[in-house]
Amino acid sequence: MAEITLDRIVAVQAAYIRCIDSNALEGWPDFFTDDCLYKVTTAENRNNGFEAGIIYADSKAMLIDRVLALRQANIYEKQSYRHILGLPTIVKNGGNEAETETPFLVVRIMHDGQSDVFATGVYIDKLRAQGDQLKFASRIAVCDSSRIDTLMAIPL
Amino acid sequence: MAEITLDRIVAVQAAYIRCIDSNALEGWPDFFTDDCLYKVTTAENRNNGFEAGIIYADSKAMLIDRVLALRQANIYEKQSYRHILGLPTIVKNGGNEAETETPFLVVRIMHDGQSDVFATGVYIDKLRAQGDQLKFASRIAVCDSSRIDTLMAIPL
Amino acid sequence: MAEITLDRIVAVQAAYIRCIDSNALEGWPDFFTDDCLYKVTTAENRNNGFEAGIIYADSKAMLIDRVLALRQANIYEKQSYRHILGLPTIVKNGGNEAETETPFLVVRIMHDGQSDVFATGVYIDKLRAQGDQLKFASRIAVCDSSRIDTLMAIPL
Repeated sequence: MAEITLDRIVAVQAAYIRCIDSNALEGWPDFFTDDCLYKVTTAENRNNGFEAGIIYADSKAMLIDRVLALRQANIYEKQSYRHILGLPTIVKNGGNEAETETPFLVVRIMHDGQSDVFATGVYIDKLRAQGDQLKFASRIAVCDSSRIDTLMAIPL
Repeated sequence: MAEITLDRIVAVQAAYIRCIDSNALEGWPDFFTDDCLYKVTTAENRNNGFEAGIIYADSKAMLIDRVLALRQANIYEKQSYRHILGLPTIVKNGGNEAETETPFLVVRIMHDGQSDVFATGVYIDKLRAQGDQLKFASRIAVCDSSRIDTLMAIPL
Repeated sequence: MAEITLDRIVAVQAAYIRCIDSNALEGWPDFFTDDCLYKVTTAENRNNGFEAGIIYADSKAMLIDRVLALRQANIYEKQSYRHILGLPTIVKNGGNEAETETPFLVVRIMHDGQSDVFATGVYIDKLRAQGDQLKFASRIAVCDSSRIDTLMAIPL
């Protein structure tokens, strides 16, 4: 079957972070397949073979719950975030799935305007074509630093 | 009519920041249409419906004036800048125009070598094809932080 | 002859930094042609016409030596790095070579989790097609800051 083009991969990666950074979180779960895996972990955890990570969800329903919880916590007043994605690598591509790795950098902007590097790492993704849409069947956000805020206010 | 390809969008976005970061400012106004809109504003201003912003120009002639003023102020000795663009989202595309959003991060490098995050935000653009060239009919740089230097030395 | 596509340029740029950031340095020299030029320098040096730079290698063999030296120094325990690449500009393209410029940002993550901007700059590259592979015939990493650690632990 045809390969998934770079254009489509760029489009879904860019749309995903646009959704988060514009605080349109209710649309975030729709980037995933129903039976998705979503995980935030650290490079150290990963190297040590620890599966758990910081955030773990294995269905779209769990992601919807997470958004509800974040909205109730009403944390957004305090800061905003800006994701910058580097160029993606296509590790595997064929049939209706592509495996990609995309470096990320997240800057946190505090209410007083102070900006700092909040997180860096790499998204390890399995993308699946569903009709003309591309969904995350699996997204593992591997953070470089082990000092990640466990009360993380936003999805990565 | 045909859509504007991602390749062309990437090319013009990359060329724009290359122009600025290599201090070739005299070429900067040429990225715009004659009747362009160029605006630098903050997310807070935008959310509050304030139109003014930090910088406002509604013609290419005003951009040319701005470059002249910056050259007279002769500010460039003191620092340099590096723009890093994230992956662009194509919001709308058809005819000879495309609407895109591209996240940016600007690092400022002081004369003593100190580097820090100067600004983050998103470019909200309307690109128009003119022959084989793509021009900014409108570029609104929305900065995440409200603490932006109002004596901004460079265009964003 | 056909031009080298943006897709292929993105692929090799992304694969290069993936190799470094995943600490797979032994694969790094293979991104270059045998008779390559690899140089790390600063914008200030370059503007002043100094050729030497911080790192200079004019063959793939020298790059292999460099990796061996880095492995013996065994520096990797102490920190990790994350390269974020901006959108590339294709300056020239034809025959089996393309000249490109790609902005970069490198974040250093210390063992205690502290992250900071380690370097910014631009890669000035000459890419050469060899069969279905794209190799760096020349890569000059021009750092914006003159305060670059001369005991640089990793290749840029």
